[in-house]
Amino acid sequence: MGVRGHTAGFGMIELEVGLGNRSYPIVIGSGVLKSSDWWSAHAPEAVVAVITDENVSPLYAPVLSNILEQLGKRVVKVVLPAGESSKSWQMLDRLFDQLLAAHCDRDSLVVALGGGVMGDLAGFAAATYLRGVPLIQVPTTLLAQVDSSVGGKNGINHQRGKNMIGTFYQPRAVLIDVDTLNTLPPREVVAGLAEVIKHGAIADASYFAWLEDNLDSLLKREPEALVEAIRGSCAIKARVVAADEREAGIRAILNFGHTFAHAIETGLGYGFWLHGEAVGCGMVQATRLSMQTEGFDAEQALRLSTLIERAGLPMFAPDFGRERWLELMALDKKVKDGAMRFVVLEAIGKARLRTVPAGVLARVLEQTATLNVGALLRGIPPNAGLHQRSKASA
Amino acid sequence: MGVRGHTAGFGMIELEVGLGNRSYPIVIGSGVLKSSDWWSAHAPEAVVAVITDENVSPLYAPVLSNILEQLGKRVVKVVLPAGESSKSWQMLDRLFDQLLAAHCDRDSLVVALGGGVMGDLAGFAAATYLRGVPLIQVPTTLLAQVDSSVGGKNGINHQRGKNMIGTFYQPRAVLIDVDTLNTLPPREVVAGLAEVIKHGAIADASYFAWLEDNLDSLLKREPEALVEAIRGSCAIKARVVAADEREAGIRAILNFGHTFAHAIETGLGYGFWLHGEAVGCGMVQATRLSMQTEGFDAEQALRLSTLIERAGLPMFAPDFGRERWLELMALDKKVKDGAMRFVVLEAIGKARLRTVPAGVLARVLEQTATLNVGALLRGIPPNAGLHQRSKASA
Repeated sequence: MGVRGHTAGFGMIELEVGLGNRSYPIVIGSGVLKSSDWWSAHAPEAVVAVITDENVSPLYAPVLSNILEQLGKRVVKVVLPAGESSKSWQMLDRLFDQLLAAHCDRDSLVVALGGGVMGDLAGFAAATYLRGVPLIQVPTTLLAQVDSSVGGKNGINHQRGKNMIGTFYQPRAVLIDVDTLNTLPPREVVAGLAEVIKHGAIADASYFAWLEDNLDSLLKREPEALVEAIRGSCAIKARVVAADEREAGIRAILNFGHTFAHAIETGLGYGFWLHGEAVGCGMVQATRLSMQTEGFDAEQALRLSTLIERAGLPMFAPDFGRERWLELMALDKKVKDGAMRFVVLEAIGKARLRTVPAGVLARVLEQTATLNVGALLRGIPPNAGLHQRSKASA
Repeated sequence: MGVRGHTAGFGMIELEVGLGNRSYPIVIGSGVLKSSDWWSAHAPEAVVAVITDENVSPLYAPVLSNILEQLGKRVVKVVLPAGESSKSWQMLDRLFDQLLAAHCDRDSLVVALGGGVMGDLAGFAAATYLRGVPLIQVPTTLLAQVDSSVGGKNGINHQRGKNMIGTFYQPRAVLIDVDTLNTLPPREVVAGLAEVIKHGAIADASYFAWLEDNLDSLLKREPEALVEAIRGSCAIKARVVAADEREAGIRAILNFGHTFAHAIETGLGYGFWLHGEAVGCGMVQATRLSMQTEGFDAEQALRLSTLIERAGLPMFAPDFGRERWLELMALDKKVKDGAMRFVVLEAIGKARLRTVPAGVLARVLEQTATLNVGALLRGIPPNAGLHQRSKASA
């Protein structure tokens, strides 16, 4: 196997997202981005549009373009500004314009090369360009590798809210090369770990225990540990997506911590905390909630908050005040018929949905949303001094 | 059946588009728009967004809103400008803004009330709003009733081309009330007949013969004849769509006459001829082509062009000149690998795809594209004086 020749002493791992005739593989390994064999087998198209951002482009677009061109393909590279603000109509229009100008037709392949923003934007573009063209996701951030690249969700933002416009559109394949994490800023690695921890917390107690044992290796970015962590997270996500592709039910458990997180992101302004940071904090809040609504065990709660803390994620939330908090959470699109639904834990590895009365929520907010917003916005980093306080509270 | 009580002496007809778990009914009848029973059975949602245009809104939105409100629903009416220019990012954004402002959530229903433009725009909105909400198509033009409302195609235009952005997204149901055709301008009825004739020509010789016998009743808008014609057209379209939902193969035969038609629409400027008028003319051209490539029988060709002529559709195409014609057709997105593919007839009721050499095409254009473009654009109606000439050529 040519693919193995590119790996660093351990094999390429392949998982499947089981969705009938839309099933697709997730390939995980070290050096797999450069596997000519893989691309030859998965990209028969003569024209490939590589959609990437200004940060990722110089790092990984040249090697990918070279491989594709050596396979005789015409490569159309589209480079967009990095960051959440690219998830807009304007940027999508610019992207379509470049695809049309380059005469990409229905038999062209779109490759999304980058983090979650590029995956969402290029995924939506692939879903809607000429009513849909094939898509391969090549996520280059930990967050995108363990979460957003798998499951087919894509989208752009509207001035009235994040991810309001999008589709469910499954890729042909997801290619995850852990070597791309070597160029990721440490804060982004930590943010990605939030979703990794989330997957263990909601669906797999033994994976959670493995994370407790291997967190230090992950923070050191040891390739073997990264491959194993990503494999475990993708397996959980693939299982949940296969059971409920369009989020009619069980898929919603993937939103553990996210209603709180979205409120934090909106309240502080998007990008002030990374999504993963907000999710880390949101999971601590959702854990508190679970203790109240499910009698979630205090010792397990401590294990979860300890792992979040060890990862370097924020433990306490901004104190927006009760009214503003409720308002911010009501903006979340998972609100149904005015009632607030949350993902809660019965145990580590076991999640469920629960409609929560406002009174219970208010108590949780009092316990968890304690950071002075003014101080936060003046530039004190999200987790400065928090370890101390979280230890005190534990 | 409560529904029958609303019909004008003949039953409501129901067809099914067979797409597995995405199958859906097409209901056809006189007065069915006002059937409270039908809406009660097919629209369980508490919130219904009725998307319509400024022309259709005063005619049919009040009665529909009343029925829905009597069923206890909250109706969110969104009225957009009429015409092809509404199929734009700007209008879509305005639509999303109104849906968000009205707090339409994932459990809201979108109803597309209007012609093909509203169907395409509201369909695309339903496919992408919060990653997809339920959709009911209520087409109010003949063209939309027999063609665009069935099959799930939607889309908006890009400055570089028509329908470049869109999805395949099947509605929950299509409700066709022939009474809405009473308010349609005669030219629009004629344009709709082009697609009706097309369905017979490509897929059903006995339906074609029925059209020959009943064209006068259709032009007089006799409800029984309209219901039967729409039933026949929708049955053909539903069969083709069920066999090839995403236009990987056989569905392309629905484009009979359309490569020529799109060239005419682009060449004259969109809206100068109605789409159906361009299709009528394009079918005459495709018939000529079929005589050359398939040995399509001259007598059958005469039957087809005679029916197109009797309907009042244009018989001759604008003379853009050979080079411009080829350029206009190459812009069509059905061009594959530079070769021009056309839908041709082997017989009435039997179509196939064929790659056509430029020389053959040039000959067809010489025979069919004979109208002085300058005269056309100075305002001489598309079919003025054409009946005379088409008789001479026949």
